[in-house]
Amino acid sequence: MAIPAQGVGMRIGFIGLGNMGSGMAANLLTAGHEVIAYNRSPAKVAALAERGATAAPTVAAACAADVVISMLADDTAVEAVTFGDHGIVASLPDGATHMSSSTISVALAERLTAAHADAGQVFVSAPVFGRPAAAAAAELFVVAAGPASAVAGLQPAFDAVGQRTFVLGEDPHTANLVKLSGNFLIASVIESLGEALALVGKAGVDKQQYLELLTSTLFGAPAYRTYGGLLARGEFEPAGFAAHLGLKDVRLVLAAGEQLEVPMPVASLIRDRFLALLAGGGRDLDWSALGALAAWEAGGPKPG
Amino acid sequence: MAIPAQGVGMRIGFIGLGNMGSGMAANLLTAGHEVIAYNRSPAKVAALAERGATAAPTVAAACAADVVISMLADDTAVEAVTFGDHGIVASLPDGATHMSSSTISVALAERLTAAHADAGQVFVSAPVFGRPAAAAAAELFVVAAGPASAVAGLQPAFDAVGQRTFVLGEDPHTANLVKLSGNFLIASVIESLGEALALVGKAGVDKQQYLELLTSTLFGAPAYRTYGGLLARGEFEPAGFAAHLGLKDVRLVLAAGEQLEVPMPVASLIRDRFLALLAGGGRDLDWSALGALAAWEAGGPKPG
Amino acid sequence: MAIPAQGVGMRIGFIGLGNMGSGMAANLLTAGHEVIAYNRSPAKVAALAERGATAAPTVAAACAADVVISMLADDTAVEAVTFGDHGIVASLPDGATHMSSSTISVALAERLTAAHADAGQVFVSAPVFGRPAAAAAAELFVVAAGPASAVAGLQPAFDAVGQRTFVLGEDPHTANLVKLSGNFLIASVIESLGEALALVGKAGVDKQQYLELLTSTLFGAPAYRTYGGLLARGEFEPAGFAAHLGLKDVRLVLAAGEQLEVPMPVASLIRDRFLALLAGGGRDLDWSALGALAAWEAGGPKPG
Amino acid sequence: MAIPAQGVGMRIGFIGLGNMGSGMAANLLTAGHEVIAYNRSPAKVAALAERGATAAPTVAAACAADVVISMLADDTAVEAVTFGDHGIVASLPDGATHMSSSTISVALAERLTAAHADAGQVFVSAPVFGRPAAAAAAELFVVAAGPASAVAGLQPAFDAVGQRTFVLGEDPHTANLVKLSGNFLIASVIESLGEALALVGKAGVDKQQYLELLTSTLFGAPAYRTYGGLLARGEFEPAGFAAHLGLKDVRLVLAAGEQLEVPMPVASLIRDRFLALLAGGGRDLDWSALGALAAWEAGGPKPG
Repeated sequence: MAIPAQGVGMRIGFIGLGNMGSGMAANLLTAGHEVIAYNRSPAKVAALAERGATAAPTVAAACAADVVISMLADDTAVEAVTFGDHGIVASLPDGATHMSSSTISVALAERLTAAHADAGQVFVSAPVFGRPAAAAAAELFVVAAGPASAVAGLQPAFDAVGQRTFVLGEDPHTANLVKLSGNFLIASVIESLGEALALVGKAGVDKQQYLELLTSTLFGAPAYRTYGGLLARGEFEPAGFAAHLGLKDVRLVLAAGEQLEVPMPVASLIRDRFLALLAGGGRDLDWSALGALAAWEAGGPKPG
Repeated sequence: MAIPAQGVGMRIGFIGLGNMGSGMAANLLTAGHEVIAYNRSPAKVAALAERGATAAPTVAAACAADVVISMLADDTAVEAVTFGDHGIVASLPDGATHMSSSTISVALAERLTAAHADAGQVFVSAPVFGRPAAAAAAELFVVAAGPASAVAGLQPAFDAVGQRTFVLGEDPHTANLVKLSGNFLIASVIESLGEALALVGKAGVDKQQYLELLTSTLFGAPAYRTYGGLLARGEFEPAGFAAHLGLKDVRLVLAAGEQLEVPMPVASLIRDRFLALLAGGGRDLDWSALGALAAWEAGGPKPG
Repeated sequence: MAIPAQGVGMRIGFIGLGNMGSGMAANLLTAGHEVIAYNRSPAKVAALAERGATAAPTVAAACAADVVISMLADDTAVEAVTFGDHGIVASLPDGATHMSSSTISVALAERLTAAHADAGQVFVSAPVFGRPAAAAAAELFVVAAGPASAVAGLQPAFDAVGQRTFVLGEDPHTANLVKLSGNFLIASVIESLGEALALVGKAGVDKQQYLELLTSTLFGAPAYRTYGGLLARGEFEPAGFAAHLGLKDVRLVLAAGEQLEVPMPVASLIRDRFLALLAGGGRDLDWSALGALAAWEAGGPKPG
Repeated sequence: MAIPAQGVGMRIGFIGLGNMGSGMAANLLTAGHEVIAYNRSPAKVAALAERGATAAPTVAAACAADVVISMLADDTAVEAVTFGDHGIVASLPDGATHMSSSTISVALAERLTAAHADAGQVFVSAPVFGRPAAAAAAELFVVAAGPASAVAGLQPAFDAVGQRTFVLGEDPHTANLVKLSGNFLIASVIESLGEALALVGKAGVDKQQYLELLTSTLFGAPAYRTYGGLLARGEFEPAGFAAHLGLKDVRLVLAAGEQLEVPMPVASLIRDRFLALLAGGGRDLDWSALGALAAWEAGGPKPG
């Protein structure tokens, strides 16, 4: 993460100071950018203002910038700040850029691309991989897509929040598709590990030793270590990423697959599992609880 | 891999010199063990004899040893050399050990445990993780289970063929269950990656770049690199591990799950996919072709 | 179907003269009701006008009635005629009833219920079971839900179009849920029969004889006869109900299941199958082609 | 059911007097045939002897006949009476016929065909559709396959136990395949109905009314009435056909599908459901309890 020389910092509006956004915005400040921050509940803005951010009382105020970054929970939240008389589209200067880091649907990314183009603005999708701790440590992975010059111009912002950027091309929505597919792959790791753990666990194999074996051999990746550990310990609270958000993402993957006419049976199975998890009261558990359903169906305790 | 001091080498019968077994037997010789080798087709024995092995004309001849290791393709092959008037059970000395490294069913491991115990012999399951290149390089991972003293006594053999050993406990069949579950997890990686690649590929995302992104972030594990690469390149011949053997393993996982009353829906889905692959003529393709069915169902070409 | 006595006929607006609606509207005329008909393409209105209907040039004109019936293809079409400045909500008299016979989502039924209540009007859901021939013959089954007095008042209309009415209760959306679940059950018959036919067919059993056996014994229901026959003959054109509409309905079932937190794995599987059918070019085939995918995956020809 | 003229009755050995077999054997007596009955537990033989049967103390004794009919629970039971020194193959006269009405695997039917041919005997598969009450009432449906002259010669026996016979051809195992596929179709009705009932039930629709609607319209078949009724009432004890036998049959269907390379995803799903049912303690419930798992996953009570 390079600190920009004096004077090259960007003027960045930042909308959405949740678990992920607050770390990202703080890292933009650290990297020398000017940050005008807006959040629906203002307490989070105050915390950031102490670190040098300017508090924006409205979305429109945060749009008085070269680029406005939005980092929100879902499509509905992004639509709420983007459209309408005082939203981003109505407020952003001509030629300025909306960089969306939220995990949103492919369809909404397409709508945002069109709406900003109609308004003479630029839209770039730049969703990120990483949990809140990675956001705080500027170790996210950024997946960016949009007009080449706009993406290049955002590189200092990407560098401030992440450890590496992958640029996909000119169509913003492909970045969202890739982000969603990544969450699908994580969920499929959770489900598969859950089935394997249910199997060997019922045969009396020690789960921690089993995971040690897996992650020492063919499965030595963060996804297996992180979610395997949570699963083996049955540790689903507090949620790093809640089950109902996991369901949302797999729904968006399936919607993208439907639009492209791509059947994804593992994604369908995961969706059904999430519904069973929610129906059983697990809405706010960590999404890794998905993997505990296999043991439940095998006669074990219900997760949560 | 430690070279044993002069005189501590074991006298080891070795049955099955296929892609995996020939590398393992050669490494036992290199480590200073005496190897009496048997193979159904004798040409492979001759090659090993040039490196110092003794050629055994029959299974019974290979059993004149402290331990006999079997490394064969499936249950049927293991049953053929184990039972019957001239098989391992009938031929092995009192107190000697049968170490089975084949990927066999949990049920057969249980039968072998009982049969050897009845005959005053010892049975140890020691299946391995790794493809033929890893077997040749003595870089396998050994998963061992059986009576503690027998397992301890086999450590020099494990060290000769592998880079690391995981000892699971006293029940041999748990090692087979863990091995099968590992193959299930690999197959689930192939299937999930196949669905994700079908999705982003149909949207025009470059598959190699996508894999680079995945393996640089949350999925930086050999399973993703190896099988993702084969899938992205559509490179299914020659087979490192054939589709019909992949089907066999997932069938054994499901059988183990049925015995333990553990539903494994992802395994069921993979089984159905393998059947479609075989029905389409893909029996001898690499099992990674499993992952190409998602793109086929999405309107792309049939694998193979 | 009772012919009402002179003078008791209702004044009915009818919106949507497609395959189903034209037959229903004609039967309302036959039963002695006054029909004011609107259709997006006016040619169909002219045909009905020859049988005594009044042509309505606009949706609003068709709303000058005691009850307006809408029978359209999907949510989008119903929304288009219902909302907006000249839609049904804006045009229907105080206290009049909107009877919706379209197969729409549960969510839209809830929105329509609320919108009409806000406007001082009444909303009744009355979707129907039956293909176009049954609509023409007044042999539909009507599933009705809504305020009891309104439902009772509509009985002459139900009698005019159907052979039997099932009244579910006061919540209109439950009728839509039941209708969607019925289409799910039909699709599951198609899929299951498709798998069974692929199995016995590949073993050389004659498919027609097999169906004769099934429908003579435990499966002697119209769903098995109709769809089994189409499947056994591979007769998917012309479509009685197109595959893309089948996909729409299973999507709505899954959406309803998601709202209620009810996993429906067979519905998920059917959705994936429909996507494969569409991706393979089968969008406009009869939805029974869904059942031909099992034989395709078993090495047979692609449907369509 | 025609009563044969004096003197034309056959001399029939009957092995297996369970729920199904006792009714069938009684009807053979009623129709004027001579019955030599064997059962593992002799109490059931005594009951039949009172109605005119000859008690056979051994399997071999029951084989002193023109035809021996076996009606047993599974492959293991049929193998036990067929093979070995005192089994049917060893005991049946030259040219006599073994008619197997048990629901057995396709693979076992093939073995039996070969074994009887080798012994100069004839094998005919004649599995039946119907529950115990239908067996008692001589209202079974018989599905027969085998050498044409042998099948023709058995017609009086078929007529004595059933209401109708379907003759499939010369390969006995096709009859077993058709029988298994029929049980698969019943199980798929149970599963699909279970999902639909979970959906509409959670929305507050009355289940009995819902079933009345289904069976009055497109689903007016015995499979829907019988299993729908059990499901709607949650009436799973006593079992007409136990869950673990349902699991056995779907396993045999899947095995047949594997041999023929026919993927059957609905069958796979049903297998997983049965495992969950057994793991939850439902082994001896009626197999219709399979359909209650959907409501369980949707947050309802566990069946059993």
